[in-house]
Amino acid sequence: MKRTAIDAPGLLQAMKDFTALLGSDRVFAADEDKDAYSDHFAGADQVAEHRPSAAIAPDTVQEVREIVRIANRHGTPLWPISRGKNFGYGGSAPVLAGSVVLDLSRMKKIEIDERNGTVVVEPGVSFFDLYDFIQARGLPLILSVPGNSWGSVAGNALDRGVGYTPYGDHASRICGLEVVLPDGDLVRTGMGAIGSGPTWNLYKPGYGPSWDTMFCQSNFGIVTKLGLWLMAEPDSVLGLNIDVDKPEDLGWLIDTLAPLRRNGILQQSPSIGNWLRAAATLTTREQWAKPGEKLGPSAIAAIRQKFGIGWWAVALRFYGPLEITEATMRVVEKAFEGKPIQKLGRTRWVKGDPPEGSPVTGVPITYPLANANWFGGRGGHLGFSPVLPVDGDAALKLFKRNYELHDQYGLDYHPSFAIGERSMNNVNQLLFDRDNPAFVANADKLLRQLVKEAAAQGYAEYRAHISYMDLIADTFDFNGHALRRLNQKVKDALDPNGVIAPGKSGIWPAGRREHTA
Amino acid sequence: MKRTAIDAPGLLQAMKDFTALLGSDRVFAADEDKDAYSDHFAGADQVAEHRPSAAIAPDTVQEVREIVRIANRHGTPLWPISRGKNFGYGGSAPVLAGSVVLDLSRMKKIEIDERNGTVVVEPGVSFFDLYDFIQARGLPLILSVPGNSWGSVAGNALDRGVGYTPYGDHASRICGLEVVLPDGDLVRTGMGAIGSGPTWNLYKPGYGPSWDTMFCQSNFGIVTKLGLWLMAEPDSVLGLNIDVDKPEDLGWLIDTLAPLRRNGILQQSPSIGNWLRAAATLTTREQWAKPGEKLGPSAIAAIRQKFGIGWWAVALRFYGPLEITEATMRVVEKAFEGKPIQKLGRTRWVKGDPPEGSPVTGVPITYPLANANWFGGRGGHLGFSPVLPVDGDAALKLFKRNYELHDQYGLDYHPSFAIGERSMNNVNQLLFDRDNPAFVANADKLLRQLVKEAAAQGYAEYRAHISYMDLIADTFDFNGHALRRLNQKVKDALDPNGVIAPGKSGIWPAGRREHTA
Repeated sequence: MKRTAIDAPGLLQAMKDFTALLGSDRVFAADEDKDAYSDHFAGADQVAEHRPSAAIAPDTVQEVREIVRIANRHGTPLWPISRGKNFGYGGSAPVLAGSVVLDLSRMKKIEIDERNGTVVVEPGVSFFDLYDFIQARGLPLILSVPGNSWGSVAGNALDRGVGYTPYGDHASRICGLEVVLPDGDLVRTGMGAIGSGPTWNLYKPGYGPSWDTMFCQSNFGIVTKLGLWLMAEPDSVLGLNIDVDKPEDLGWLIDTLAPLRRNGILQQSPSIGNWLRAAATLTTREQWAKPGEKLGPSAIAAIRQKFGIGWWAVALRFYGPLEITEATMRVVEKAFEGKPIQKLGRTRWVKGDPPEGSPVTGVPITYPLANANWFGGRGGHLGFSPVLPVDGDAALKLFKRNYELHDQYGLDYHPSFAIGERSMNNVNQLLFDRDNPAFVANADKLLRQLVKEAAAQGYAEYRAHISYMDLIADTFDFNGHALRRLNQKVKDALDPNGVIAPGKSGIWPAGRREHTA
Repeated sequence: MKRTAIDAPGLLQAMKDFTALLGSDRVFAADEDKDAYSDHFAGADQVAEHRPSAAIAPDTVQEVREIVRIANRHGTPLWPISRGKNFGYGGSAPVLAGSVVLDLSRMKKIEIDERNGTVVVEPGVSFFDLYDFIQARGLPLILSVPGNSWGSVAGNALDRGVGYTPYGDHASRICGLEVVLPDGDLVRTGMGAIGSGPTWNLYKPGYGPSWDTMFCQSNFGIVTKLGLWLMAEPDSVLGLNIDVDKPEDLGWLIDTLAPLRRNGILQQSPSIGNWLRAAATLTTREQWAKPGEKLGPSAIAAIRQKFGIGWWAVALRFYGPLEITEATMRVVEKAFEGKPIQKLGRTRWVKGDPPEGSPVTGVPITYPLANANWFGGRGGHLGFSPVLPVDGDAALKLFKRNYELHDQYGLDYHPSFAIGERSMNNVNQLLFDRDNPAFVANADKLLRQLVKEAAAQGYAEYRAHISYMDLIADTFDFNGHALRRLNQKVKDALDPNGVIAPGKSGIWPAGRREHTA
């Protein structure tokens, strides 16, 4: 889909101004630069549809403000990225082809308040950076990390990424932002709107309307600093690793976990995954089936046997003083009494033990990215991430249908169900070979069908790949898309020239609002 | 302070249109109506400064939309109230004198999802209404109630009121709103923006920018439905009631509670109050001192002796399965070992016991309102509510200075410190006799001084009385009041005629922006 070409003379002039501001070594406009800032997980057509004009890399907030002013002068759309590792959702590529990627990855300041357990990060800080910073100082704090810890701490939180600890709902731990607005103004939200004071990163709402969540998945401004709450290292982490044998076990597994999670007995959002999670990370598909052949019951059985895993598996962890975590573990085990568990493993870490070294205790990882190799060729994947009620029957129904649909389009079903307090993020990775156009086309068709059928049941996605942001925004249709009208009014008021991330989350500026799909 | 008089012929015409829409029995414009909708807790001057022109009371969302359209036609400012019981912050009175109070208290629909522990309430639903609804159906859910349970469940959450259970940060439990926008459009936020589906009140963020917190303490729209999470009735509630002897004990008490609260061992936000909390509710001042005489050490000692209380007291409660609450209680008691506690009481409620019948278990109350009688005459109070770090030294310093200031202006110090995860809401009630003009003037001067000195230390208030909304907004001065510029841009975009709650939280529409204080 195209939304009005970018004004070429304006762009040329903007590039001159960007170069004057940043010097030529922070302006990237060669073909290989455009490749570098494209979507590395998409097929050729999608890459072309989202190819940027260039990228520019400021070092400071002041430069970001200048860049925004230049963009306004010439009507040049910018696509801000933190570190550009949003794989499965577009990486560093813009929705609108020809946008200039505003690469904030050089901005890497970290300020930690150890006593209060808070950090202020600039967008370039990765989970590895923050982990190293904390380890180097021996601070008693742990991170919540996503599967791809190359990514930006700030960017992940702003895109509502999730992790595995009690602080795993990253967006909900944001406390205070610094934002460059589309007109170049600089605002601090919440208690940061006080000139100076100690509560910016301690109290979320501030006074009057609260802005933090308005800058999530949004094109209303460019976040240059983000306050985030960090968890204190607990005295103990106990755990239960639960595997179940049959696909249908998903239903009772969810229904057993639901009240534990809703009532705060489980503080983290446990993620239920299937046998493909291990297989796709640690092996490739050709080890299990011929090309084009379905993964039938015997292949699945072989996979499960090799890794010693159930059809589904989930890791529960309890964090805190040992006396409380032990009591919690007994309560949770009691809730599972009489259930047909295939395998139950117990884990135990107490302060002083060697680190468990896994994401549930905040150690950054990247190995889940290996699943892109599953089909061979240059791998990629697309995210399909509907939000469901925490309801076993509903999940089972959706799972069965979506499994069928994957089969029908020649893809393998790779879901996870992360159980939140009252909802589940059902994150699915549509793995494919991005060098195989027929395969890519099938993944695209499958995704569209999945979105359509989910919408028919009243489910929408919490996050979208850049190619499907409009498709998903279209499903939010209450009162003739009233929410879109509201978002557009604010977009036009804050960004009359439409320079910040046109099309992000389906929000287009006034001049680019006509569909030309 | 006045902000441009209201256009009289326009108002007259609007009143005709309101009457045509609602009938004369839902339009209230007599003098006694204006009194009824004024601030019942303020002195005469403030009442006059905030006297409404009239009040109107719709029954339905459709009527609210029509009212907003009428208001736009005639430029008539509306002041929406839910139930108008926001005592200490202005009750039902508007910031701008002459506004028409939009009284939503007749809208009383309640829809509960028992399984997921959620409710959708209209603005007229009080805590008593919701409690009765739940009790009548025997639902295993408990409320978090404020000190004045006459108030609206929705209104309290939107104004960021606090309660005493783990769900006591009411605004943070909001999930999904229905809002009439200033132009009469109707929007549902979050997953409610899907035409129909099960996740509106289950998943907070939705897709793209999230609006829920933008309608808190805000004049960007009129909330007509509010989704709220409710806590499941726990299996047990254990508790510790801690009294301490000396004013200085506030410091270590806060520092002992801080990590317990931050690390989630304490799930509720315990509220530390002083001896005046009991005295002002259960007695009047003349029982303890002559008029004009200070409450010195002997009076304080007498009060403490009568009620058997410390200088400060705090009630901690642990909610959940008995095995976990017992372990938690042991951990908390251990944290207090060796501390100079004056009195330690233990409470224990286990499912099946008769209800404890107090706000910590969700039973609505109004008796704290009795403290308005403390000084005799017709009582009133003003709220002064700065947000502090959870830091004993900082609290002690502020407490000592504010105590002095109260003494200086002839008021009694009536604070509470509610300990949140990383911040404290220090809610102070400035009690006075509203029929004594000198006393009222002193309360006003004291409040201004408190705000000024708090600001000098970098503390701002989380909530403001209608007379001080600008004063407090002025303290948010980062980058020349950048947050105000941002709020005003959005206000102008959504409400070009400035019809919704001009002046709320210091946000004025374009036509009324000049200070005339």
